[in-house]
Amino acid sequence: MRIYKNPKKETWKELCQRPEFELEFLESAINNILTRVKNSGDRALIQLTEQFDQVKVSQIEVSQQELVTAENQLSSELKKAINIAASNIEKFHAAQRRELVTIETMPGVMCWRKGVGIEKVGIYIPGGTAPLFSTVLMLGIPAKLAGCKQVVLCSPPGKDGLIQPVILFAAKLVGATRVFKVGGAQAIAALAYGTESIPAVNKIFGPGNQYVTKAKQLVNLQGTAIDIPAGPSEVLVVADQYADPAFVVADLLSQAEHGCDSQVVLVTQDESMIEKIQEEITTQIARLPRKEVAQQALAHSLVILLSTEEEVAEFVNEYAPEHLILNTRNCDSMSEKIYNAGSVFLGPYSPESAGDYASGTNHTLPTNGFAKSYGGVSLESFLKYITFQKITEQGIKELGPIVEIMAAAEQLDGHKESISVRLRTIK
Amino acid sequence: MRIYKNPKKETWKELCQRPEFELEFLESAINNILTRVKNSGDRALIQLTEQFDQVKVSQIEVSQQELVTAENQLSSELKKAINIAASNIEKFHAAQRRELVTIETMPGVMCWRKGVGIEKVGIYIPGGTAPLFSTVLMLGIPAKLAGCKQVVLCSPPGKDGLIQPVILFAAKLVGATRVFKVGGAQAIAALAYGTESIPAVNKIFGPGNQYVTKAKQLVNLQGTAIDIPAGPSEVLVVADQYADPAFVVADLLSQAEHGCDSQVVLVTQDESMIEKIQEEITTQIARLPRKEVAQQALAHSLVILLSTEEEVAEFVNEYAPEHLILNTRNCDSMSEKIYNAGSVFLGPYSPESAGDYASGTNHTLPTNGFAKSYGGVSLESFLKYITFQKITEQGIKELGPIVEIMAAAEQLDGHKESISVRLRTIK
Repeated sequence: MRIYKNPKKETWKELCQRPEFELEFLESAINNILTRVKNSGDRALIQLTEQFDQVKVSQIEVSQQELVTAENQLSSELKKAINIAASNIEKFHAAQRRELVTIETMPGVMCWRKGVGIEKVGIYIPGGTAPLFSTVLMLGIPAKLAGCKQVVLCSPPGKDGLIQPVILFAAKLVGATRVFKVGGAQAIAALAYGTESIPAVNKIFGPGNQYVTKAKQLVNLQGTAIDIPAGPSEVLVVADQYADPAFVVADLLSQAEHGCDSQVVLVTQDESMIEKIQEEITTQIARLPRKEVAQQALAHSLVILLSTEEEVAEFVNEYAPEHLILNTRNCDSMSEKIYNAGSVFLGPYSPESAGDYASGTNHTLPTNGFAKSYGGVSLESFLKYITFQKITEQGIKELGPIVEIMAAAEQLDGHKESISVRLRTIK
Repeated sequence: MRIYKNPKKETWKELCQRPEFELEFLESAINNILTRVKNSGDRALIQLTEQFDQVKVSQIEVSQQELVTAENQLSSELKKAINIAASNIEKFHAAQRRELVTIETMPGVMCWRKGVGIEKVGIYIPGGTAPLFSTVLMLGIPAKLAGCKQVVLCSPPGKDGLIQPVILFAAKLVGATRVFKVGGAQAIAALAYGTESIPAVNKIFGPGNQYVTKAKQLVNLQGTAIDIPAGPSEVLVVADQYADPAFVVADLLSQAEHGCDSQVVLVTQDESMIEKIQEEITTQIARLPRKEVAQQALAHSLVILLSTEEEVAEFVNEYAPEHLILNTRNCDSMSEKIYNAGSVFLGPYSPESAGDYASGTNHTLPTNGFAKSYGGVSLESFLKYITFQKITEQGIKELGPIVEIMAAAEQLDGHKESISVRLRTIK
């Protein structure tokens, strides 16, 4: 870990810079995949799956039979845990619903907003070694609550041509409408343009590697909405002298094991903590199955010693972490000072992994400093608000003259006339 | 106008297609401007303003003196109208605030969300013949309500080197922090990267021509958030046999006068309405100052005759108009069937221009079919929601084992260990 003791403020911006991993050739490679899927549909998907996932898939769509079989392959303990997590996630996201409130801004001028589920949404779940079924819950549950009519899930098949049973179980649980065995940029292309099998959607959600991320950006430019810009996962832990170094290190390592590009930061005012965590890291990393990954992530991670609480809050807001753990006695008052973060975990018993899986909050969060301008995925991510207004005769008599004056000042006489023509008919 | 009587459903998708105006060379031209501003800051801004706006500006920032002078140049009638409109807009957007609600998803697991104003936002106001001061209200008022700390406004200077006084008046009214005389893609670049004078912002709002739109897209790819994808303005009017053709035509023309690329659509079940509005257009367009613009917009506009109310609703949802006027007796029940639209105007006395200026709803809305996946600008556009969680000892005892099972199933042992290390310390 790179240790900085009381770094000067001028250096903070650089300290907060995440490394850039983008490959030079990426855009043209992805554009090529997008075009192939746009032009050749399912045929391109089957060819690309053979090329990238080394498996020939004859049937792209997951059958009802496969869904049933998947459920039978899981332990009842795991199914029960998933059901409890799903229930917590549902509670937290259902509470984000809003009552419809009509505002009478002037007598006879009624205005309101209605949240409407986006009709068709796509959920992308990456493949690889770890089956990220928790992401199925995090995206599928708010989609269902929002009332999205079609929820299309894509995930790459393994070498056996199948999607992991636990992902299929979660997909069935959240009520995904259709599930397809296709991954990578080609899945994003299919969701954006549609193919013979896969319906085109209005908005695409979900994490992925650089290929998936770039494909999402490119289809977004062409008009398909996407959730949030994505980058490697990250955690910033603030620890005071009362924090248990074993908790602190476990939290740092749980982020470090995600990938070699994971960002891990410790900020403290307690110099002795720096020594304590280094010893603890040696102990804990030894028993971690993904220790090579964690070691690489730790190599570019930061430890920052600062001297005041104000500086700590300021540094956190400058870094704008995806996950922020405030493992301090003053976590409540400290949290009031935080305005740039994705999700905040307060006190010694709130590890990030609680929110990653089961406490109820969403784990799809802004990385790479995007917490300065974006929040994480929520119920609203699956809704759009339509505004409505209904103006009475009385209302237009009051409001109309104001609009006439403003329209004239903007030199838009047609706008003015659309009021005048009405006012002339009212006695 | 192009008239289609009972068009077959297979043709709807094509009918709903908006024309594409993007120029071939656009991206490289804009990238060139972005790079110049990134590298040379204010110097590039002054050169580009001279090149595109034909005016040499020595002082980019609008002075306090200019703001005061501007106010004195306006009629008290106009200032009063603007103040009333601002008050309505404030009422409607203030009602979008949410109470902070804590959800205890399990005993001892407390989760909540807090809406926090995006720290620095930029507002772009186009120049040209019509001074769009209404857009200053529509973006500046929610920014203030959200508690954004910096609100930076950019607008191109006229040939006299000044911004129109009514725009400056509105900027002062909404409490814009700083105002700069710079327009076009160079203004977007300045807001994204910052220059010696202009601070970089986290999110950029506001309409503009193709150059501005493309510049917003490109800086968005580099990490600056933007409001919504933009395209030419559009209205779809649904009229029944009871609708006054003079109202219908005034509404169509008020949209048509915006620009030659404006989209104007009439949908009706009443065949006689088609004839009536054609006569009325001839009468009304003759007295419109911007008639050449309106005529060009009308040339590619649509009149659609359909035979059932269901078909009408279905066509509207397929078109997904920015503005939808339901000038029908059944507008209330009809509005229940609409799920793709930006803003809906109900009944004979609710013209689009009411919402454009003063009823209180926002006029920054999704065009080009984006209403399928995006809502218009709202208070939330200037906020991001941060999630928080605080788990007690009791809470982690309940929740922890569930997380352990799920983390193990995702093969993320570090995640599991961050729970186990805590559970081991609890008796």
